[in-house]
Amino acid sequence: MRIGIVGGGQLGRMLALAAVPMGHEVSVLAQRDDEPACAVARPFLGAFDDEAVLARFVEHLDVVTYEFENIPQRTLRWLAARVPVRPGLRSLEVAADRASEKALFRELGIDAAPARLVDDPRSLEDAVLALGLPAILKTRRLGYDGKGQRVLRAPGDVAGAFEALGAVPSILEGFVPFTRELSILGVRAIDGAIATYPLVQNEHRDAILLRTDAPALGVSEALAARARAAITALLGALDHVGVLALELFEHDGRLLANEIAPRVHNSGHFSIEGAETSQFEAHVRAIVGDPIGSTALRRRSTMVNLVGALPPREALLEIPGAHLHLYGKTPRPGRKLGHVTIEGEDEAAHGEAVRRVLALVRGTGTA
Amino acid sequence: MRIGIVGGGQLGRMLALAAVPMGHEVSVLAQRDDEPACAVARPFLGAFDDEAVLARFVEHLDVVTYEFENIPQRTLRWLAARVPVRPGLRSLEVAADRASEKALFRELGIDAAPARLVDDPRSLEDAVLALGLPAILKTRRLGYDGKGQRVLRAPGDVAGAFEALGAVPSILEGFVPFTRELSILGVRAIDGAIATYPLVQNEHRDAILLRTDAPALGVSEALAARARAAITALLGALDHVGVLALELFEHDGRLLANEIAPRVHNSGHFSIEGAETSQFEAHVRAIVGDPIGSTALRRRSTMVNLVGALPPREALLEIPGAHLHLYGKTPRPGRKLGHVTIEGEDEAAHGEAVRRVLALVRGTGTA
Repeated sequence: MRIGIVGGGQLGRMLALAAVPMGHEVSVLAQRDDEPACAVARPFLGAFDDEAVLARFVEHLDVVTYEFENIPQRTLRWLAARVPVRPGLRSLEVAADRASEKALFRELGIDAAPARLVDDPRSLEDAVLALGLPAILKTRRLGYDGKGQRVLRAPGDVAGAFEALGAVPSILEGFVPFTRELSILGVRAIDGAIATYPLVQNEHRDAILLRTDAPALGVSEALAARARAAITALLGALDHVGVLALELFEHDGRLLANEIAPRVHNSGHFSIEGAETSQFEAHVRAIVGDPIGSTALRRRSTMVNLVGALPPREALLEIPGAHLHLYGKTPRPGRKLGHVTIEGEDEAAHGEAVRRVLALVRGTGTA
Repeated sequence: MRIGIVGGGQLGRMLALAAVPMGHEVSVLAQRDDEPACAVARPFLGAFDDEAVLARFVEHLDVVTYEFENIPQRTLRWLAARVPVRPGLRSLEVAADRASEKALFRELGIDAAPARLVDDPRSLEDAVLALGLPAILKTRRLGYDGKGQRVLRAPGDVAGAFEALGAVPSILEGFVPFTRELSILGVRAIDGAIATYPLVQNEHRDAILLRTDAPALGVSEALAARARAAITALLGALDHVGVLALELFEHDGRLLANEIAPRVHNSGHFSIEGAETSQFEAHVRAIVGDPIGSTALRRRSTMVNLVGALPPREALLEIPGAHLHLYGKTPRPGRKLGHVTIEGEDEAAHGEAVRRVLALVRGTGTA
């Protein structure tokens, strides 16, 4: 099939790298030809609202998917009128708006942090009264990697906070004590068949994902079942086709939903080596109508992001079980440049390999 | 690094698919832009002796490799004068000429089928007298997938055989009774470090590889050690950098070398899923000067080639543990269009999955 990916970043690159071996032709809608996906797909360059570019892009396609949420709805509607867009627009609409996301969690009985809509300084004050402090003010749209967020710790932080985030529709979330961050990925086929990846544990640094451990250790089967039930309910309710990610907080044996991403997700990168079918292959299989494949874990795997700078290459590649994935981006502080997956059967050897990778990553000053 | 691959076929495609995630930029020297590698690399199109194309190709490169043997020596010499070519020209020279290959086996004490040079009808008669019948007449150069070969079974087959193969320098090989065909792949780094993949078992149909089982079962440790010693000696003697394949016959507890391929090899395709580092990644690591990585087997794996026609896609992808690799080629009888790798921990389940794949492949009339 001829697959189009809206967005030329690393997720698009890894989708293309999974699609090509399955015999698909991949085009990518990007802004510049040095974006990561352009190295392995046919690039169509231009603004997302440039209908001439969209027309050339779509002309060659059987199906369109996307690799990030912040695509103008108008662009996707224009494309969807001409070719199937998977996942559908509803997934994107819900995920792009924290208020819709919370409403869906509530509707499906998925526990989440308490939240209030904030549309002006006055409603922020009301929300603070209702939820107490500390609390987190988040813009409803366009937030990622900690951007568009502000922690309110003391009453003095409240005044001006709404304006500091741009005076845009926001929500205030009550503070949730949490022991650790988890996530679960699921994938749904066109015929409604669903498969889920194991629950994984995530560790952030400066609001950017640093590390994912698959599977999350010490998770009770009851908790894992609740996570699977949540992602399964979300996939069905959204009539989602492809991969969907759900970020969760765990505390005291409880799970609280944080947010969803209607796409392949950084916390699923371990699956390239770690799962029988990677999240990228599973997404491609789903959107073209193929059977999804097994999402079972092959081996214990740890993913470490390379952010801002790259550790010494040779030292990294000497570490047993380490696999390097680079995105072809110019280093810049805070920029995700690649990731390393460390897989291993033996717990002690795996732990030692992860420590060696983290030491190298820390040596670059990025972790 | 900027890697150039001479040849645009499926081996080049899979090399590029392994190189890009490691952060390399890949260019490919091909004849037409619909060749398999062109979908994932920057294509430079033209005849191998077109120096204007070669100059544009090499301008962008830090290292050149190749994906098939039958490249004009002149082309590689021209390139090697400008940029490192890995593996080196000696590997290609030896592998491209069955007489040099046999001489190297002899020099290294590697057992091989008895053979005589054949340069004219008269030397063919002498060779038949020396080796007896049946025997196989093979052109010294340009043979692959059973092309350039002729089996001489009875005295009446001898007259005209030399001319039928084009009256070119050939060799006559004595008939070797064999139980099964095996192969072993090794990879050598620039610093001389060597790693070997497990010995695998191959099954051909109409002189084209149908199936590879990794590892080969029922191999004594002594036999496996001899195979490792042979590939290790060859890698060293050729000062080879990258992957080298050695095809072997097994009979009665003995191994006889058949031929070498100075490149990634069809019998190593299982390694994409089956080994910790695939042959493609290992080759790329070697030629750019990175540590090779572990070549250990992850799981029992079987590779089945898709030749001439493609089996029903959905039925194939429903088989547990089956991974599809298509090369983007138009179906044509005898053409390798892709392969399926079936991996599995459990012997019975794996065997059943392989049977299902083979039944589908047979259903297309190609196996």
